[in-house]
Amino acid sequence: MVMKINKNFINLSENFLFSTITQKTSAHIAQNPGKHVIRLGIGDISRPLAPAIIQAMTRAVSEMGDTATIRGYEAEQGYDFLKNTIGGYFKKKSVDLRYDEIFIGDGIGSDIANILDIFSIDNTVLIQNPVYPVYVDANIMTGRKIIYIIGDINNNFLPLPDRNVKADIIYLCSPNNPTGATYNKEQLQQWIDYALDNNAVILFDSAYEIFVQDKTLPTSIFQIDKARECAIEFCSLSKMAGFTGTRCGYTIIPHELIRDNMALNKLWKRRQVTKFNGTAYIVQRGAESVFAEEGWAQITEDIAYYMENAQIITQALTDLGIWYSGGKNAPYIWLKCPNGMSSWEFFDYLLAKGDVVGTPGIGFGINGEGFFRLSAFGNRDNVIMAMDRLKAIWVKIGKYN
Amino acid sequence: MVMKINKNFINLSENFLFSTITQKTSAHIAQNPGKHVIRLGIGDISRPLAPAIIQAMTRAVSEMGDTATIRGYEAEQGYDFLKNTIGGYFKKKSVDLRYDEIFIGDGIGSDIANILDIFSIDNTVLIQNPVYPVYVDANIMTGRKIIYIIGDINNNFLPLPDRNVKADIIYLCSPNNPTGATYNKEQLQQWIDYALDNNAVILFDSAYEIFVQDKTLPTSIFQIDKARECAIEFCSLSKMAGFTGTRCGYTIIPHELIRDNMALNKLWKRRQVTKFNGTAYIVQRGAESVFAEEGWAQITEDIAYYMENAQIITQALTDLGIWYSGGKNAPYIWLKCPNGMSSWEFFDYLLAKGDVVGTPGIGFGINGEGFFRLSAFGNRDNVIMAMDRLKAIWVKIGKYN
Repeated sequence: MVMKINKNFINLSENFLFSTITQKTSAHIAQNPGKHVIRLGIGDISRPLAPAIIQAMTRAVSEMGDTATIRGYEAEQGYDFLKNTIGGYFKKKSVDLRYDEIFIGDGIGSDIANILDIFSIDNTVLIQNPVYPVYVDANIMTGRKIIYIIGDINNNFLPLPDRNVKADIIYLCSPNNPTGATYNKEQLQQWIDYALDNNAVILFDSAYEIFVQDKTLPTSIFQIDKARECAIEFCSLSKMAGFTGTRCGYTIIPHELIRDNMALNKLWKRRQVTKFNGTAYIVQRGAESVFAEEGWAQITEDIAYYMENAQIITQALTDLGIWYSGGKNAPYIWLKCPNGMSSWEFFDYLLAKGDVVGTPGIGFGINGEGFFRLSAFGNRDNVIMAMDRLKAIWVKIGKYN
Repeated sequence: MVMKINKNFINLSENFLFSTITQKTSAHIAQNPGKHVIRLGIGDISRPLAPAIIQAMTRAVSEMGDTATIRGYEAEQGYDFLKNTIGGYFKKKSVDLRYDEIFIGDGIGSDIANILDIFSIDNTVLIQNPVYPVYVDANIMTGRKIIYIIGDINNNFLPLPDRNVKADIIYLCSPNNPTGATYNKEQLQQWIDYALDNNAVILFDSAYEIFVQDKTLPTSIFQIDKARECAIEFCSLSKMAGFTGTRCGYTIIPHELIRDNMALNKLWKRRQVTKFNGTAYIVQRGAESVFAEEGWAQITEDIAYYMENAQIITQALTDLGIWYSGGKNAPYIWLKCPNGMSSWEFFDYLLAKGDVVGTPGIGFGINGEGFFRLSAFGNRDNVIMAMDRLKAIWVKIGKYN
C-alpha cells in the first residue's frame, strides 16, 4: 500500500484559453499605449446588480447583525422561501415542481460537476464538442469514458442523438455556451426519447434560458414530455441576474428519476448533506428578490439591454455576410472565421487591426477550430464601436474561401 | 453497459442524530406546554455577526449595485485581499505562508470532503472514533478503506499513532469536535512523524483553534516541525466569527506537500478551477473585516463570552464530580453519562427531568456511546439555568457505577 494521487488528473490538459487571451491582450496594450481595447471575450456581466437585489441583501446583512434575526446553519438544500419562489417561477413556465425537487447551490459549475459523485465511474458520458470545458474536465477527473458528439455548421451546432451510440450520462446545454444555438421542443424530445431508450440521464444546463426570445422554444427541459423520468436541470442566477460574483444557482431532480432502483433526488440530497453546507443566507435573500415583481422588472431591463447588444452584433455579421449561430435566443454569437483562418489567427488579427478581444472557438474543443465567440455582455458603446471596427477590417479580409 | 449509480452510497448509514433530537424535543414540548426547554445540543452560534462585519458586508453589497464597482467572476481560490489577510493572521502565529498556499472556500465541510477528489480511491484512511461524521461519510461515498483509531477515557480522547497500523490519509481535528480534547505540540509531532514515515497526508481540521486558551497549545499544525511536508489544514469562520449561515472557510496546502511526484497544491487548484466558482465577494469582504483591528476586538469578545459559558459548564461538572473532556480550549464539553446510562438514555432523562437538550455521544460513532456533548454556544442565562437543573437532577442519579 502506497499513497497515491488520483492519476486521472494527469489526463487533464491545462486549459490556457483565458490566460492566453489575457496575456496577448496585455502585450497588445503595452505595445499600443493609448489605444482603446474592447473586450467581448469573457462571458462576464457588465451591469450592476438590480436595486431590488441590493435592497434585499442589505436587509439580510442587517438581520445577521441582530441576535433576534441572525441565521446560522440551515438545510444544505436551501431555504424554503427560495425553493418556493423558484417553484413559482417554474409554474409560470407550465412546469410543476415539488419544493424538495429543488436544491439551492452556489452555481452550475459546482453542481454539474459534483453530481457525478452519485453515478458509477463505469458509466459512459456523452458530451458535445465544442462545449463548456467543465463537463469534460469533471469527467476526466473521475476517469469516466467520454464519447463526443460533433456540433458543426451542417447541424447548426445542434447535434441530435445517434441511435448507434450508447451512453449513460448526457450533457446538454441550451441555449448553448459557446455557440448560442438553442434546441427546439422537437429536438429536445429526440434527446429525451433516446435517453429513455438507453436508461440514460440527461444533465441539462439551462444557464441561458432567460435569454430565449422565441416563445416557441423551451426554457426548461421539463416542458418536454417525459423529461421528469430522465433529466436533471441545472440553472443559475449568474447571467440571469448578474450573480457571477455573488454565486447562487439551483438544481432540479424530479422524484420520478430512478436509476438502478435508487431515487437520484435522495442520492443527491445525501451527497449535499455530507459535502455541502448551503449557500449564504444573504445571497439566498438576494436571489429571492430577483423573482419578485420589482426585481423581475429590473432584471428584465438588463436582459433586454444585453439582447440589444446581441442584436447589434448579429446585424453587423448579417450585413457582412458572416456565418454565425446564436445571438437570437442567447447572449453568445458564434461566428466562422474568414479566409480559413484558425481561431487564434483570427483572434490575433482582430486584436491587432481592430483592438477587439473575442474568444477563440478552439478553446471549447477541437470542433471549435475556425470559429470565434463574441459575448453580448459588454457595454453598449463598446459593442457599437467593436462592430464598426469589425466592418472596417472585414473590407480587407472579409471573404470565406 | 448499463446505467449504474455509485453503489458506495448504499453503505452509508442514515445519520438520524439531529433529526431524532429535534423530534424528541418537539414531542417533549408538546407534552409539556409552558416549560422552558434549553438547547445545548447543536453546535450553532447564538451571537450575531460583529458590527464591523456587518459594516464591511453592507459596503460590499452596495459596491455590487454600482457599474464601477460590481465584481463578477474572480479567481476560484479567492480574492488576494482575503488571502493576504489570512497570511497575516498566520504570521502572528509564527507560521509563514505563501498567498497561493491559501484557498478560500465556503467552509470546512465542503473542502475536507472534496479534497478526496485528488487522492486515489485505493488509499487507506485513518479516522478517530468518536468523530465529526463528515469524514466517515465522505470516505464511504468513495469506497475507500477506513481504519478507526479509538478515542476513550484512557487516552483522554487524544489517540496517538499506532506504528503497526498503516494509513495514507489521516483525519485529525484539534480542538476536537465532539470531545473538545486538544493535542499538544509533542502529540501532534508524533502524528507528523508517523505521517512522514508512512508517506501519508494529514487532513487537519482546525475549526476550533480560536478557542484555545492555553498558549502552549498549537493553533495550527504548521506550528509543528515538518508539517509542511505532510499536512493540509482546514479552517473556517463559522465558529470563529459566527459565519455558520454566511459560509466562508480556507484551506492551506503548502508547496512542499508532494506525493506520488505531484504537488497537492496544484492538484487542488486544478480541482477547484473546474468544480468550484469561488465564494461570494460580499462574504469575502465580511471575512476580511474579521481580521482587522475593530472586527478582531469584537469577535474576541464573542469568543470570551462563549468560553465563559464553557467555564460555567465545566465548573458545574467539576462540582458534581462528573468526568469530562474539553471546555478549557474548546467550546464543546464531552461528559460521561452517569450510572452506566447509554447516550440516548441520558438524553431522555435530561430532557424529561431537566428540560435540557444535549447531543448523545453515540451520534459521533460507536466509541461515543455512554458519553454526551454539551455546547457552549448558547445564551448565558440559559447556560446558567441548565447547569442549575443538571445539579438538581444529579442529586438523584448522580453516581458513576
